[in-house]
Amino acid sequence: MAVHDTRSKWRRWGEDDQLGALNFITPAITAAAAASVRSGRTVSCARPLATEAAVDNPAPVAHHMIGTATEGYGADYFAIAPHGFATSHIDALCHIFHEGCVYNGYAIETVTAHGAVKLGIHHLRSGIVSRGVLIDIPRLRGVDALAPGDPIFPDELDAAEAQAGLTVGSGDVLFIRTGRWQWRALHGPWEANSSLAGLDASCLPWLHERQVAALGSDGVSDVLPSLVEGVGMPVHTVAIVAMGLHLLDNLDLEQLAETCIEEARWNFLLTIAPLVLKRGTASPVNPIAVF
Amino acid sequence: MAVHDTRSKWRRWGEDDQLGALNFITPAITAAAAASVRSGRTVSCARPLATEAAVDNPAPVAHHMIGTATEGYGADYFAIAPHGFATSHIDALCHIFHEGCVYNGYAIETVTAHGAVKLGIHHLRSGIVSRGVLIDIPRLRGVDALAPGDPIFPDELDAAEAQAGLTVGSGDVLFIRTGRWQWRALHGPWEANSSLAGLDASCLPWLHERQVAALGSDGVSDVLPSLVEGVGMPVHTVAIVAMGLHLLDNLDLEQLAETCIEEARWNFLLTIAPLVLKRGTASPVNPIAVF
Amino acid sequence: MAVHDTRSKWRRWGEDDQLGALNFITPAITAAAAASVRSGRTVSCARPLATEAAVDNPAPVAHHMIGTATEGYGADYFAIAPHGFATSHIDALCHIFHEGCVYNGYAIETVTAHGAVKLGIHHLRSGIVSRGVLIDIPRLRGVDALAPGDPIFPDELDAAEAQAGLTVGSGDVLFIRTGRWQWRALHGPWEANSSLAGLDASCLPWLHERQVAALGSDGVSDVLPSLVEGVGMPVHTVAIVAMGLHLLDNLDLEQLAETCIEEARWNFLLTIAPLVLKRGTASPVNPIAVF
Amino acid sequence: MAVHDTRSKWRRWGEDDQLGALNFITPAITAAAAASVRSGRTVSCARPLATEAAVDNPAPVAHHMIGTATEGYGADYFAIAPHGFATSHIDALCHIFHEGCVYNGYAIETVTAHGAVKLGIHHLRSGIVSRGVLIDIPRLRGVDALAPGDPIFPDELDAAEAQAGLTVGSGDVLFIRTGRWQWRALHGPWEANSSLAGLDASCLPWLHERQVAALGSDGVSDVLPSLVEGVGMPVHTVAIVAMGLHLLDNLDLEQLAETCIEEARWNFLLTIAPLVLKRGTASPVNPIAVF
Repeated sequence: MAVHDTRSKWRRWGEDDQLGALNFITPAITAAAAASVRSGRTVSCARPLATEAAVDNPAPVAHHMIGTATEGYGADYFAIAPHGFATSHIDALCHIFHEGCVYNGYAIETVTAHGAVKLGIHHLRSGIVSRGVLIDIPRLRGVDALAPGDPIFPDELDAAEAQAGLTVGSGDVLFIRTGRWQWRALHGPWEANSSLAGLDASCLPWLHERQVAALGSDGVSDVLPSLVEGVGMPVHTVAIVAMGLHLLDNLDLEQLAETCIEEARWNFLLTIAPLVLKRGTASPVNPIAVF
Repeated sequence: MAVHDTRSKWRRWGEDDQLGALNFITPAITAAAAASVRSGRTVSCARPLATEAAVDNPAPVAHHMIGTATEGYGADYFAIAPHGFATSHIDALCHIFHEGCVYNGYAIETVTAHGAVKLGIHHLRSGIVSRGVLIDIPRLRGVDALAPGDPIFPDELDAAEAQAGLTVGSGDVLFIRTGRWQWRALHGPWEANSSLAGLDASCLPWLHERQVAALGSDGVSDVLPSLVEGVGMPVHTVAIVAMGLHLLDNLDLEQLAETCIEEARWNFLLTIAPLVLKRGTASPVNPIAVF
Repeated sequence: MAVHDTRSKWRRWGEDDQLGALNFITPAITAAAAASVRSGRTVSCARPLATEAAVDNPAPVAHHMIGTATEGYGADYFAIAPHGFATSHIDALCHIFHEGCVYNGYAIETVTAHGAVKLGIHHLRSGIVSRGVLIDIPRLRGVDALAPGDPIFPDELDAAEAQAGLTVGSGDVLFIRTGRWQWRALHGPWEANSSLAGLDASCLPWLHERQVAALGSDGVSDVLPSLVEGVGMPVHTVAIVAMGLHLLDNLDLEQLAETCIEEARWNFLLTIAPLVLKRGTASPVNPIAVF
Repeated sequence: MAVHDTRSKWRRWGEDDQLGALNFITPAITAAAAASVRSGRTVSCARPLATEAAVDNPAPVAHHMIGTATEGYGADYFAIAPHGFATSHIDALCHIFHEGCVYNGYAIETVTAHGAVKLGIHHLRSGIVSRGVLIDIPRLRGVDALAPGDPIFPDELDAAEAQAGLTVGSGDVLFIRTGRWQWRALHGPWEANSSLAGLDASCLPWLHERQVAALGSDGVSDVLPSLVEGVGMPVHTVAIVAMGLHLLDNLDLEQLAETCIEEARWNFLLTIAPLVLKRGTASPVNPIAVF
């Protein structure tokens, strides 16, 4: 699956499809995922909203109190640009453009100053509830964390899957851990918008064949810089525009990784509940894994 | 359970407890709720974020696009004060004050201009995953919607429970439908901050005895105006400050009510995933019910 | 001067001109305006920032305190979309488009999601300091206020000028009072974006001949609805795009009108100091008249 | 004038005074300042609004376009916390607290989450129009810029005044140039909230005796760190709380300094027009000097 194949998968779910690969999540798959719950333990996959400016957070979330001790109630306000390299968020399918189009062949002119007329994040109002699978690459490699810029190739997806004792299948939501926040804790922040560990574009056919429903990472799924000449973020471009795959960026998968080890399983019930922002291009989210 | 009993339930979960009645949700209860999933159908309990000013929305959510067709990507920004009578949100336990204290006896001075030092919404990072129960009062009464100001008394909680064929128990998250949005669709918006159907304060002991873990409504749980002289929102005050009960306000329970009828069951797996806003007093949420 | 003449005046101040009719304000004109000061009395021409939602203010300014008594200092935050029918602001020349162009023939593609590459409000960094003239139409007509939708024709400009005992000339900043806020005080708010007293398009040649440097009003200069079929805001379109005339909208000219009567003069030193917002399309302003 | 004298100057302008030392600016002083204009040249004393995060700008101004080429008009939105070390702003007298009080003896409890009940910035609605005087310390010392942390003592105020050939007097607005932005251009940004050139507290009696009406600087007037043990910002504390002196912080005085040399005069007509933010603690401003 290459960038030039972008159009080949459009309309497989109809002319008016707004959900893309989330169509793989049938009610039966949701029910099966719920049935897999054993211990009832829950884990967040989100970072706290990033309110402090840093080299990897140039536009911090503004968070202000508007009611305090003196007012008789606690109340606050926040302002956020959800895309950005420090916020755990889900991209709507209108987020990425390619050759004048967004997913399913809609013209990019549908993304207006008044919001995205097509493929807005509000189409995910009913949430994503499916089987989640953690692909833990640092664990596979026996390291704390991948270095920024370190690429992941499909053979490691196969190996991590084998190590986890499962097979990624239709409707799964795949979370790829690179150990980014471990690296940041050890080495401090860096310009993450130009250097992150992540998937090489050669992983795209693998994701396509497995019929993954959504893809997330503690980075931005793409390895940065890209190894594909002339295409800055091939995973974003092909996954979102061609495959209709919702991406979740900047997740925090540290506690999830620990819990998977403790529970000795790398799959779980995963729930993702985007805010219902009409015509929005993204939502901050707090995905919850239930073991 | 009256306002003057506020202090009697503090510290039942320890001096440092930050979760209140969410402690009723044990991993076993979460697992049992997941095991109850049958059809795998999912339903949102949230309204779209309220971006348009109205008499019941004087401080609308600001939503702006910051990337459109001309920029090469879709991106946006939003600013929100989550408390307010048009936004589906969950209150943190630091939201309401009584006699100089918040829940568990912390001084209100812990709610500062830099945020809530105690009981911030970030303590719910791992989410709420439990059994949800819909109490559908309009269905019980055979009406489309309750009129603003219409109170609900405990006997109707009993009757709705019986009609639903279940018993509310420890760890349940209770959603009370008044049909507010039906009423608004028929009669237009009104000043909801002074007039809403909801629970009379006499329901508080019922909620306490059943060990409800959290409480939500399409209104604000409280009937407005309050029937308790001198106390504007007794359910907010007693439930949050005394009982440590997280409240969810301004939910949209219309589709949930229809689905309950179609599925012929009024309980479901409920997942609520607040944004991880450090020291925040609330979060907008999109609770997802799974049948 | 009609809409179809739009291009005829471009480049009179050069290919790279960013200031338009403000070029009429030479240092000599500024100095003469300063020399006209007599009493030293100062008057604001701005409304308070509109923080309360109303039918004429659907996107209110958000204003929050971020430091209060409990924090040891007072501090706050505000968020504003300066264009809008309740905020006193100055339009940058990049604000209005006509046939694919902004003022001086720049393509509208210069107005990007990253701001206006040309004609941004920051070009007014050195401020506007010139002679101001109040044209007080309610006074001319002997009424408290003009009704919404009431048009003003050029003969009234002549008459008001005569009544004021002055001649509008090159470099003057003209403020047109319609008495809007008096009307609002008497009759309550209305949907001002579709109905306001203001100038008919036939006033444009008058403004052009007098070499007015900037134009303001307590409305939006245009009469709404427009009397020109098919052109919603002909004064905005021709004044900004063709003539390079900066417009100031939603001023408060009540105190100015009273002061002019008390001082028995309808001209004054006027200072306007837009915020230096790089690539911005407008700035809220507080124009100060000095008598 | 020491910190312990704070209360001694309160109420000199009455129990209800909201303007403090701005009372020194009588209409006659305003008129005399206007009469001093010679060339008509105007100069901004503001930096562009600081939209980019940096070590001296951890909470950047958010600036978003909400109308671009594709929408048919240019429009934008910005959100700002005016206090902060990268924004040219004027402090309201409610900004600084001392021993439970703000200026004129009002209790700090008047600074609430709903804004400052007393001494809000809106009291400056009519603007500040007076004689401005530039005290150019780098010019006095023959250097490009003062180093961060470099203190200025009263003898240098006397010397700069002599060098400028004028005497600072009642109603003057004094701008102190340290060359901060030159230093930043040469050495890059630094944590300005802990290290800035500025006035030692020993300058306070000088400012008081001269009856300065307002004080500004390209820093924050105070030298940081303070030389007064236990008082972080004695100039802020005494000037604002005791003297009722409005402070302007983070001005850009580079072009002003050059113009003073070119015009061979260090006094000018100065106009400052705060936004009319009801109960606000500050306003971003663009002070304009007219020569």
